[in-house]
Amino acid sequence: MRIGELSRRTGVSVPTIKFYVREGLLPAGELTSPNQASYGEAHVQRLRLIRALLDVGGLSVAAIRGVVVAVDDPEQPVHEVLGAATKPLVPRYDRDLGDGVEEARKTVAGLIAARGWHTDPSGPAAEALAAALVTLGELGHSRFVEVLDTYADAAEKVARADLEYVAQYVAREELVESAVVGTVLGDAIFSALRRLAHMDASNQVFGQALRGGGAG
Amino acid sequence: MRIGELSRRTGVSVPTIKFYVREGLLPAGELTSPNQASYGEAHVQRLRLIRALLDVGGLSVAAIRGVVVAVDDPEQPVHEVLGAATKPLVPRYDRDLGDGVEEARKTVAGLIAARGWHTDPSGPAAEALAAALVTLGELGHSRFVEVLDTYADAAEKVARADLEYVAQYVAREELVESAVVGTVLGDAIFSALRRLAHMDASNQVFGQALRGGGAG
Repeated sequence: MRIGELSRRTGVSVPTIKFYVREGLLPAGELTSPNQASYGEAHVQRLRLIRALLDVGGLSVAAIRGVVVAVDDPEQPVHEVLGAATKPLVPRYDRDLGDGVEEARKTVAGLIAARGWHTDPSGPAAEALAAALVTLGELGHSRFVEVLDTYADAAEKVARADLEYVAQYVAREELVESAVVGTVLGDAIFSALRRLAHMDASNQVFGQALRGGGAG
Repeated sequence: MRIGELSRRTGVSVPTIKFYVREGLLPAGELTSPNQASYGEAHVQRLRLIRALLDVGGLSVAAIRGVVVAVDDPEQPVHEVLGAATKPLVPRYDRDLGDGVEEARKTVAGLIAARGWHTDPSGPAAEALAAALVTLGELGHSRFVEVLDTYADAAEKVARADLEYVAQYVAREELVESAVVGTVLGDAIFSALRRLAHMDASNQVFGQALRGGGAG
């Protein structure tokens, strides 16, 4: 197909497609005449991956280039490619976490060891968890760690379901794209479901008070 | 205690404490002389609640005033007060969600009914979930709804643990404060744990490929 059709099919403008080619995110089309190129389904899929990384994951062009290079390298194991694509999706904490951070990191390492997770105990996700624990401590809610196991159980089940979803895709491009989409939107979905479940749980625990109260 | 000590105890500056009093978020101190006021433990707790709503929850001063009024009104059932304090914590979607939103809303209402949740099927949390489902559809991942039940199971268990944590507090002020802290930091904690669990699950599903690959 010509670049105009590729643009229509993907909703990405022609100048943007040309920008992606220049930046090395998208392979150039096959030249069919000195000033005309032909694009195929691989370009449609790659554009979909780029938009997922950019719009859903919020990755920079440089980070996307890294993912795309990994996707295209047949030597890279899928596990590594998924890691490269989803690592930048963890929020980073730039503020100084103070003295409490060492103890929080130990709590995180202990939790990872206790669950037998094969995962990086000093990567951005572990660091984000340690930062949240430090903040809890600062707010006087260190005891919230007592519910950490319930959270870890839930996260484990959700993560398995996520991986089952991702593993139905065979092409690396689709695998990676679904992992990015699932990682980011999965957070939003869980957060919304947790709020809905909170209202139900609050009603169960405190709802009796409604008999006396006036507000509906 | 005097305002200087209240400031030291809470880490909130004297001008900011005076601002909160003027805005009706914090009750004025008891006048002990024409230009001196005395503050008590209730002021310490209220400042802690204000900072949690402001710094952790990101609420506006007007929204905080609404929460504080509800906390102080003995007629307001706890369930309602918790709802008022945590409702603004749901991210809002301002973009036009297009035609798909009606079907997504039906999916959400169906899920709430199927789980028997006593919760608002048209509130901000339900709307946030519908928005996420619309986005999944736009990205060609409508099938992700197949894992929605796993997410809902997990959210239900986490929400119950959250409420048990909150319910250990008796004073309304503390109840509400812990609900705000738990709601916001709970999201961050779950998100980080899910990433850690993803790495483990990815290793289980795709890790075999590591034998052939070079990267460690």
